[in-house]
Amino acid sequence: MDTHVVIMAGGIGSRFWPMSTPTCPKQFIDVLGVGKSMIQMTVERLSPICPLDHMWIVTSESYVGLVHEQLPDIPKDNVLAEPAARNTAPCIAYACWKIKAKYPEANIVVTPSDALVIDVTEYRRVISKALEFTDKSDSIVTIGIKPTRPEVGYGYIQSIHGEGEVLKVQSFKEKPNLETAKAYLEDGGYLWNAGIFVWNVRTITSAISTYVPQIAHVIEEMSKDFYTSEEDESVKRLFPTCEKISIDYAVMEKAPHIYTIPAEFGWSDVGTWGALHSILPKDAEDNAVVGNGVKLFDSTGCVIHTSSLKKVVIEGLDGYIVTEKDGALLICRLSDEQRIREFHD
Amino acid sequence: MDTHVVIMAGGIGSRFWPMSTPTCPKQFIDVLGVGKSMIQMTVERLSPICPLDHMWIVTSESYVGLVHEQLPDIPKDNVLAEPAARNTAPCIAYACWKIKAKYPEANIVVTPSDALVIDVTEYRRVISKALEFTDKSDSIVTIGIKPTRPEVGYGYIQSIHGEGEVLKVQSFKEKPNLETAKAYLEDGGYLWNAGIFVWNVRTITSAISTYVPQIAHVIEEMSKDFYTSEEDESVKRLFPTCEKISIDYAVMEKAPHIYTIPAEFGWSDVGTWGALHSILPKDAEDNAVVGNGVKLFDSTGCVIHTSSLKKVVIEGLDGYIVTEKDGALLICRLSDEQRIREFHD
Repeated sequence: MDTHVVIMAGGIGSRFWPMSTPTCPKQFIDVLGVGKSMIQMTVERLSPICPLDHMWIVTSESYVGLVHEQLPDIPKDNVLAEPAARNTAPCIAYACWKIKAKYPEANIVVTPSDALVIDVTEYRRVISKALEFTDKSDSIVTIGIKPTRPEVGYGYIQSIHGEGEVLKVQSFKEKPNLETAKAYLEDGGYLWNAGIFVWNVRTITSAISTYVPQIAHVIEEMSKDFYTSEEDESVKRLFPTCEKISIDYAVMEKAPHIYTIPAEFGWSDVGTWGALHSILPKDAEDNAVVGNGVKLFDSTGCVIHTSSLKKVVIEGLDGYIVTEKDGALLICRLSDEQRIREFHD
Repeated sequence: MDTHVVIMAGGIGSRFWPMSTPTCPKQFIDVLGVGKSMIQMTVERLSPICPLDHMWIVTSESYVGLVHEQLPDIPKDNVLAEPAARNTAPCIAYACWKIKAKYPEANIVVTPSDALVIDVTEYRRVISKALEFTDKSDSIVTIGIKPTRPEVGYGYIQSIHGEGEVLKVQSFKEKPNLETAKAYLEDGGYLWNAGIFVWNVRTITSAISTYVPQIAHVIEEMSKDFYTSEEDESVKRLFPTCEKISIDYAVMEKAPHIYTIPAEFGWSDVGTWGALHSILPKDAEDNAVVGNGVKLFDSTGCVIHTSSLKKVVIEGLDGYIVTEKDGALLICRLSDEQRIREFHD
């Protein structure tokens, strides 16, 4: 089996300003205070099942330097620069056509760069299981996370009850309201969509050709220059002409033969401060702290993430985000975190 | 008239951490965001009534460098270094004996270095009036501020109703409770004690000799070496042996012939964050901001004072202090500001 991994790392992480900025977004940050960035953790998590020279990072042109810096063991040529953000379908198409040109038998895991997995062993087992499945069939597997709460922040995968670990997907569901999320949780057949896809390269390139032929056409054109000195120029010229569409809309909701593996490996997309708060270790007053010299008095339910500050004293805050990086500071109610984007326009 | 000014600048400003630190306390900081430190404003305020070479700064040894830096036009020899903090009586004694040795006819204003005066013209008029009075009589004049609210944070001067602007002092009162402060305000004969004293050099040295002879004895001994190369060594050895006592306890509460001038020049000792909040200009939501790139959303009654941060976004804070300097950050309820000292031990 010729396993490859495609890591999508083009996000700008605007919901985590100023911890995450367009200059250095979330995937390149040590969000959890463990000494590794999210993308470093992602690579580390997958490295036992995929050699580093078969890992591909697709990212914005402006983050190529960060990728080289943080992942020096990934071959430089495996870092694919998007000259413009065109959502996930063109991103995946670029990577998969590129792989196909050299590795026509490739079996591919596509994953975000900035999610958290707690039980890494179980994660690898599930991914390996999916890879075995797609190695033998022209199917698409999307990893489904067994919900542990009626989460309204994730899309859902409706699975069809069946034998074995790999289940057929009935449908994909948009982020639900709370009532619906509760019904999904109770039903048991609904899984969180983690945005982790497994497929062989024939399957995905064929599906893209079928369902978003415009993108397939552009990438085919680009692919004439893959692995040549013309590639950069060709990508710069052609990639931005791709339709801007997510792989979910473009392919997943249309293709037949989509499967899921319901998984329990402690997953979070770490997509909000609230999610980060729930992931991080907390003190007796429910405060989560990443940073140096942070002292809390009479404060509860806060999430503190500081980078450059040497000493932080917080008194009398309940349910706040306090985050600082490179001379920018945000203090904001956790319950108002959806407003963060408007704060730093 | 040979006017001199003694500026007491030895405080460590611990109530304003981290804006003010023992390394650079409040009097050396641009607390008001006007581009000048409190001590620079104090010197500027007095410079039309006293030549700079007749201004004397008494400060801790460790702040001598800061004084030279911030007040380059004050002669270096006029900066008197206290080798140990002995409260205000020894500090004033040192300065006044030093002045007396060279200027036996000196008429002296003693003032804190870190208070605010709004109406500088009226302030100069009042100080000049006091100087005229002490030039002609062996009296002590202490400036009394007409109270504008029942403030419990200041000591009070009880004046005796009389003719003219200079009134006899009946007694000094400790910081009152709110009820007493209200009674003082209603009475009309009570004034805030601003810690600004005016006297001629004979009067104060004689009063110190009478009421705190131990200090007078030490300073007399020191004075043998004034203006010689032995002065530093002599001060280092002798000054710390002075009794640690305030000029209020040592002299003011004991001496006869103490006078006050009730003044209205918009004065504050800027002794608390609450005081700073009330002094600073405020936005429509009662927020006072000193700092760069500060944006407030849904916040009221806050006082923000940042130094190194380039961008600050605050959402949903009511009645908080947010202050940063040199990599240290404090967030604290204004109502809990008396706890600040315990936060940074």
